[in-house]
Amino acid sequence: MDYIGFSKEELEKMLKEEQKVLSKFGKKGISIDMSRGRPATSQLDIAMPMLEDAAMYNYALGGGDARNYGGLGGLRQARELFADLLGIRAENVVVGDGSSLDFMYTSVQFALQFGIRGERPWKDLPKVKFICPSPGYDRHFAICEELGIEMITVPMLEDGPDMDTVESLVSSDELIKGIWCVPKYSNPTGIVYSDKVVDRLASMKVAAKDFRIYWDNAYCIHGLYDNNDKLKNIFDSARKAGNFDRVLTFASTSKITFAGAGIACIGASEENLTEFLKHLSVRQICPNKVNQVMHVAYLKNVDNIKKIMAKHAELLRPKFELVDAKLMAEFSGDNFVKWTKPRGGYFISLDVRHCAKRIVALAKSVGVVFTPAGSAFPYHIDDNDSNIRIAPSVPTLEELDTAIEVLVTCIKIARLELVISKKQ
Amino acid sequence: MDYIGFSKEELEKMLKEEQKVLSKFGKKGISIDMSRGRPATSQLDIAMPMLEDAAMYNYALGGGDARNYGGLGGLRQARELFADLLGIRAENVVVGDGSSLDFMYTSVQFALQFGIRGERPWKDLPKVKFICPSPGYDRHFAICEELGIEMITVPMLEDGPDMDTVESLVSSDELIKGIWCVPKYSNPTGIVYSDKVVDRLASMKVAAKDFRIYWDNAYCIHGLYDNNDKLKNIFDSARKAGNFDRVLTFASTSKITFAGAGIACIGASEENLTEFLKHLSVRQICPNKVNQVMHVAYLKNVDNIKKIMAKHAELLRPKFELVDAKLMAEFSGDNFVKWTKPRGGYFISLDVRHCAKRIVALAKSVGVVFTPAGSAFPYHIDDNDSNIRIAPSVPTLEELDTAIEVLVTCIKIARLELVISKKQ
Repeated sequence: MDYIGFSKEELEKMLKEEQKVLSKFGKKGISIDMSRGRPATSQLDIAMPMLEDAAMYNYALGGGDARNYGGLGGLRQARELFADLLGIRAENVVVGDGSSLDFMYTSVQFALQFGIRGERPWKDLPKVKFICPSPGYDRHFAICEELGIEMITVPMLEDGPDMDTVESLVSSDELIKGIWCVPKYSNPTGIVYSDKVVDRLASMKVAAKDFRIYWDNAYCIHGLYDNNDKLKNIFDSARKAGNFDRVLTFASTSKITFAGAGIACIGASEENLTEFLKHLSVRQICPNKVNQVMHVAYLKNVDNIKKIMAKHAELLRPKFELVDAKLMAEFSGDNFVKWTKPRGGYFISLDVRHCAKRIVALAKSVGVVFTPAGSAFPYHIDDNDSNIRIAPSVPTLEELDTAIEVLVTCIKIARLELVISKKQ
Repeated sequence: MDYIGFSKEELEKMLKEEQKVLSKFGKKGISIDMSRGRPATSQLDIAMPMLEDAAMYNYALGGGDARNYGGLGGLRQARELFADLLGIRAENVVVGDGSSLDFMYTSVQFALQFGIRGERPWKDLPKVKFICPSPGYDRHFAICEELGIEMITVPMLEDGPDMDTVESLVSSDELIKGIWCVPKYSNPTGIVYSDKVVDRLASMKVAAKDFRIYWDNAYCIHGLYDNNDKLKNIFDSARKAGNFDRVLTFASTSKITFAGAGIACIGASEENLTEFLKHLSVRQICPNKVNQVMHVAYLKNVDNIKKIMAKHAELLRPKFELVDAKLMAEFSGDNFVKWTKPRGGYFISLDVRHCAKRIVALAKSVGVVFTPAGSAFPYHIDDNDSNIRIAPSVPTLEELDTAIEVLVTCIKIARLELVISKKQ
């Protein structure tokens, strides 16, 4: 709604009514957290059978004793499982403890400290830059900020990063060493990179030999609708283009089994992994292979994982659809309120120009918590103060219904305040 | 045996006889690995009950859901357990995944990258040095080597590091930022730091504000004889001396439950831990808290851990005693062959001057593997080529019997070769 044609008095009356609605919510003592992409308790319950048989699994799997030291790269069977999931070979996978974020941070930190494959350590360069398609994942950007890597914001489009801009940047600047990507059900917009974008990323000319694509395939099998979205295999494209070394991929079972207590992997060329493990061997003797045996025994294979993920989808889908339905009911066709309709992942991305901070603050004032506005952008700078990330997974459907009503009210208030302020 | 009074011919005859013995071993197809401090399979079996009840534990322990994200510092109950074990408060403990080595590496790496408590990042200093009491733990020294930290070798005495040397070094050199310590059942000599040494470490004058003691209490409860060796609590001493910030301690359950699949901790002042977690939060969302719940439920409390460790001691003690008995039978009173008689831990330290490399090579040639000679010294430089680390935990008693017979033969050969070469 553009609110054109209303007098200031009419707008102020409308504002007061919405404020009344919000204040009623305020009295209800709501406490709903939609700030992070966490599984709901009901989703975590799905994996409990994994624990039931914990003492009966074969811990001599793969020859050694998984309960003892050894095997820094992870259990062979766990590597095979991730390899199948990601469409690569077990030789191209290292499986660790639960955190794929740790693998991402660590690859960047090793590059800073030691350099990649004989190139100068990044710490010895005048500057290091990463391309950050935005809106994107705040924890990727936090790694750059923490480690002093300059972030270059590039627009995220419907089919992936704006590749014209990306190509022109990486081909001319040797100090650009990486790009962050969540290629499937992107965080937070939920889009899937098109084949074209995958090919361009894999084959583009880069100035830096040690340029790497940080391919965070966090939602590789996390579709809401029979998982039928296909992401092109970037390793295939990269191999064809002679750039197999360029891609580092990451995944975990945090949203398949237990969040933070699953198993995670890094996938890359054998040469990249050999170097990675050489450095990692100084930090760690081996990952928790007991947990890897449990995961391998429970998850079995990709077909079985699909069945497990269908159960997750059953729980998540109604939540995504509820958010969409309620926003449609209020803002269908509204030019000022836009949101994404993802077919997977954990987020809906909402855009209300010049109102994001105010909306998040209003919602928080009555107990509904969203990720802080701006979080999906490098340095938290959302030029248009527009983007809000909605994580609908944790609340129950009833809570979610309330939360979105609050959100709708907050959007209206923020919009009305803005229009009124412009009338003055 | 000094072999004085034997003619060259007699010595050569003796050598030939020993070589015959060794060659007989060589034909047996022996394969015994005594290179690392790993638990034996029988020890790992002790913890299997932990897995039996895995599905029945209370994962809502501590308020949240341990199966979900959150709680970077670890489960409250796991922190309390380590706190009790180490004699500190839960506020002074962070519990992570299985690797205490990771916590050590990471504390050093954070100091390099970000500095400690407002002091200059170590990477910006002309040089950083660590004191390395030796023989010591090879993986500590590997961290220094990997991260470009200069190592200063200081002799390890019967009651801990040579404190006169340590004090004189740290009081005068601002670039000395740390000291590695395995204070109880030290790796590899098995000694326990005396109260005096603990006090001196805690109270000594240091030139660097950001000097830290890396107190790797890996064998805090790993006695072979009713765990009755008492290590003085360094945090008490440090608090008294006004140096509470100086100590970072580390421990894990790798040798209590499963090696590499246990839970590990870092213990320090709250200020040190707050800074540590701030940096860690960029790398990891949380540790595997499912594993922490399992450990807390199984280990229960320190008294119960003592009972578990008594079972380990029952399995380990005969192995340590066998090694000692067999060495005594051959070399009792021999001035040239010395070894330690630890009351806990995982290692016996053997010294045969100028022969270590040769002995390890000879043993390897017939299938008995020791840690490479020199490993217990910075840069692998053992000035006297003297030290061999014996890890008797993995082999069965029968294998161990054979392995030590091989060792005895190799010692004799190496000694004879040396004496003969000097006669020429």
